[in-house]
Amino acid sequence: MIPVKRHLISAADLSVEDAILILDTAEEMSQVASRPIKKLPTLRGRTVVNLFFEDSTRTRTSFELAAKRLSADVINFSAKGSSVSKGESLKDTALTLQAMGADAVVIRHSASGAPHRLAHSGWIHGSVLNAGDGTHEHPTQALLDAFTMRRRLAGAPDGGPVPHGEAGDGTGRDLAGRRVAIVGDVLHSRVVRSNVHLLTTLGAEVTLVAPPTLLPIGVESWPCRVSYDLDEVLPKSDAVMMLRVQRERMNAAFFPTEREYSRRYGLNAERVARLPEHAIVMHPGPMNRGMEITAEVADSARSTIVEQVTNGVSVRMAALYLLLGGADLAASDSGR
Amino acid sequence: MIPVKRHLISAADLSVEDAILILDTAEEMSQVASRPIKKLPTLRGRTVVNLFFEDSTRTRTSFELAAKRLSADVINFSAKGSSVSKGESLKDTALTLQAMGADAVVIRHSASGAPHRLAHSGWIHGSVLNAGDGTHEHPTQALLDAFTMRRRLAGAPDGGPVPHGEAGDGTGRDLAGRRVAIVGDVLHSRVVRSNVHLLTTLGAEVTLVAPPTLLPIGVESWPCRVSYDLDEVLPKSDAVMMLRVQRERMNAAFFPTEREYSRRYGLNAERVARLPEHAIVMHPGPMNRGMEITAEVADSARSTIVEQVTNGVSVRMAALYLLLGGADLAASDSGR
Amino acid sequence: MIPVKRHLISAADLSVEDAILILDTAEEMSQVASRPIKKLPTLRGRTVVNLFFEDSTRTRTSFELAAKRLSADVINFSAKGSSVSKGESLKDTALTLQAMGADAVVIRHSASGAPHRLAHSGWIHGSVLNAGDGTHEHPTQALLDAFTMRRRLAGAPDGGPVPHGEAGDGTGRDLAGRRVAIVGDVLHSRVVRSNVHLLTTLGAEVTLVAPPTLLPIGVESWPCRVSYDLDEVLPKSDAVMMLRVQRERMNAAFFPTEREYSRRYGLNAERVARLPEHAIVMHPGPMNRGMEITAEVADSARSTIVEQVTNGVSVRMAALYLLLGGADLAASDSGR
Repeated sequence: MIPVKRHLISAADLSVEDAILILDTAEEMSQVASRPIKKLPTLRGRTVVNLFFEDSTRTRTSFELAAKRLSADVINFSAKGSSVSKGESLKDTALTLQAMGADAVVIRHSASGAPHRLAHSGWIHGSVLNAGDGTHEHPTQALLDAFTMRRRLAGAPDGGPVPHGEAGDGTGRDLAGRRVAIVGDVLHSRVVRSNVHLLTTLGAEVTLVAPPTLLPIGVESWPCRVSYDLDEVLPKSDAVMMLRVQRERMNAAFFPTEREYSRRYGLNAERVARLPEHAIVMHPGPMNRGMEITAEVADSARSTIVEQVTNGVSVRMAALYLLLGGADLAASDSGR
Repeated sequence: MIPVKRHLISAADLSVEDAILILDTAEEMSQVASRPIKKLPTLRGRTVVNLFFEDSTRTRTSFELAAKRLSADVINFSAKGSSVSKGESLKDTALTLQAMGADAVVIRHSASGAPHRLAHSGWIHGSVLNAGDGTHEHPTQALLDAFTMRRRLAGAPDGGPVPHGEAGDGTGRDLAGRRVAIVGDVLHSRVVRSNVHLLTTLGAEVTLVAPPTLLPIGVESWPCRVSYDLDEVLPKSDAVMMLRVQRERMNAAFFPTEREYSRRYGLNAERVARLPEHAIVMHPGPMNRGMEITAEVADSARSTIVEQVTNGVSVRMAALYLLLGGADLAASDSGR
Repeated sequence: MIPVKRHLISAADLSVEDAILILDTAEEMSQVASRPIKKLPTLRGRTVVNLFFEDSTRTRTSFELAAKRLSADVINFSAKGSSVSKGESLKDTALTLQAMGADAVVIRHSASGAPHRLAHSGWIHGSVLNAGDGTHEHPTQALLDAFTMRRRLAGAPDGGPVPHGEAGDGTGRDLAGRRVAIVGDVLHSRVVRSNVHLLTTLGAEVTLVAPPTLLPIGVESWPCRVSYDLDEVLPKSDAVMMLRVQRERMNAAFFPTEREYSRRYGLNAERVARLPEHAIVMHPGPMNRGMEITAEVADSARSTIVEQVTNGVSVRMAALYLLLGGADLAASDSGR
């Protein structure tokens, strides 16, 4: 099994083969969770550093768990209280981690492009994994979303043409012809950018649904459709992905009230009834229950929100495994 | 060896058999600390999450050490800087941890009842361990206190009737007939509630000693005595447990000065002299030396304060071991 | 292999034999980093506590990595949010860590002397390692600096007399006759104090270069020279160590401007040209690029700044290994 690339910076960098390799590997990784001892020895003696310039307990924990299940040593290097807060540059932080022998650096940063700089500057010899940068990308989130759709929609009707590269096994290794609606604050979302890239690569059709004020300039050039009317889009969707409303941004410039936002772009039971029977409801978390999604919908059988979290660990295990060039799965397993 | 129950939420839930099983298992666990390699492989591949909504480095560290000695992977999920601070509900945090594959969640929360909700909501399939909730309970603290008393008072005179269920081995598997005084700010203490439940279950007699303003409403219905006079209680006590004074609560409503509190309810050498010769002095820590207890008493031979910390690790190892259904101690040991 | 001493508090405590044992052991440890599995099983089942009263992500991470490479369990016990912030004394924190079974406590504290109190009070039975105390000492920093000089200057000319205790292998086990300039804010630097002690012990000659206002009272009695003129010292130096300028201290009392400081005491390419050809440039990090050192110099081939970080992990592995009385390196290795 050959590592895809050395870094995972952007979903836009992934070829369809890369993406499918990661998703297939994540399938294998997901089986580790059901073993009595939920660990593989693959990355024993390797060091994974979580370099978080922004707090994100959920994402950090998911990567930490993934690395520990592969038996790596994990160092949480939070920027708060570190040399960074004394004005150290990203370069010097990177050189320090490299010098300490980091085999992989998982970076979350408020500045779009920081992971790219880290990866392509020559400062770091190990792998760089983007855990979210500014409003740019969050590729492992897109991968776990695709993983979740592949699993849940396998064999579902209305799947469009035969899945890419696979003959009639009905499991849908890619998402060819699937229609995905992504709803809400597109403007500030790195999750959307990664999803549009990856879903398009995998053959799905994406429709963004948002008020005009929450769409970025230049969205016309993205490989997806745009709509302002959620009710019109729902009946034609295999999956609807609700985005977190960042309340602090939800001011009078966009909507007079939160209630007004909910009324126009929130997902409730009535709206879910407009979806095809097989369609799923997604959310990257954390949710504002009652805001962009009602509690009833979030907890319903067609919600995949909890599965997405589970799948996140599998996808991150797969990414670390492939990037760090772990030995063959079966071989390393018997060496346990 | 059969797990007691799936969760450890409240000392009030524990039968005498449950409690003695945990305490006996803790005895076995305490021997791990004296080995060259202070670890058991029992929980290898299991994930223990420390979910702390309040800071408590001591308790968190004790659980972390206990889990690591059993070879579990430990994730510290502090609420600060997490989705929780962005308004995520306890439910969604719980669902996330469940989805990530947490086998046990150790929770500290400022709200009484939060661990119970976590355990009995169906959100979490693994075990929930209460590490302190509001003014409600702190069951592992009570267990470590009972463990300490059992060890220290074994064979001591004035032990009352023959220990429960054991014939004359003199080790005192329960605390039948032992008299315990708990002194200080009962009103705000979760340690007291857990201790009253557990000590009563184990057959001990508890006397609370506090000023009326620091006793909760309804204390009359608790299965214990109440006194306002420390000097009168001491000669009839096998153990005296001093509670931490929370200075911020020690205002004029209760006492004109800290000195006045110390004079009436503080433990000094003169008061210790009133105790029976075999009696021990306890404190859950952290102490205010010079306030509820003098340094001289805290560091004296009859103080068990340091042992309590040591025993805390053993008791938490026992709880994790039993709740997570570890294999038989001997068997897992030989598999090392 | 016999442990040097039980604690590592001060470079001043180290004999030349102690220091060389640590440095030689660090050489062996540095080879672990090049293995496929970068771990030794030596300290499995041992507990190393990082007790940091001041933030220092770099130093904490270096110790954490060193301990994990030796397979120890690591507990990060930050004083923030702990009982310490509720007013617990150093004594009670120490007793707690001892009671929990800490085999080593790595302490960083703002008060000079805190590690010494911890080590010599009898509170802790395990080893105490000073990770920086006030303006006093930072012995592992001095050891990693000496390690770096030994490696880089081995075989270089102008090395003075034949290295201590070694016959003509040219590797320079000590630093006899080497000339080291330490430049900048000597007054507030614990790094300087440790370096002056250790370098002198190893036979090197140290010259401090600083404005008079940034030299401590009593510096005349230190076993080193003092100069106010960097340009005059450089041509006679085998190594020049630049200290971090703490901008908050760089006020009008010392210099009218940062630019003025840079002009007089900053290291730039022009000044580097005055150094002997074999001389190296050092900095303990984190740097203020453009202040005490230009980016060009920091990133040049004769800069050892990144190596110093790498060597820090090896030196800390060696210290933990020797203090905790690990088994013989070769033996523990085969037991892996």
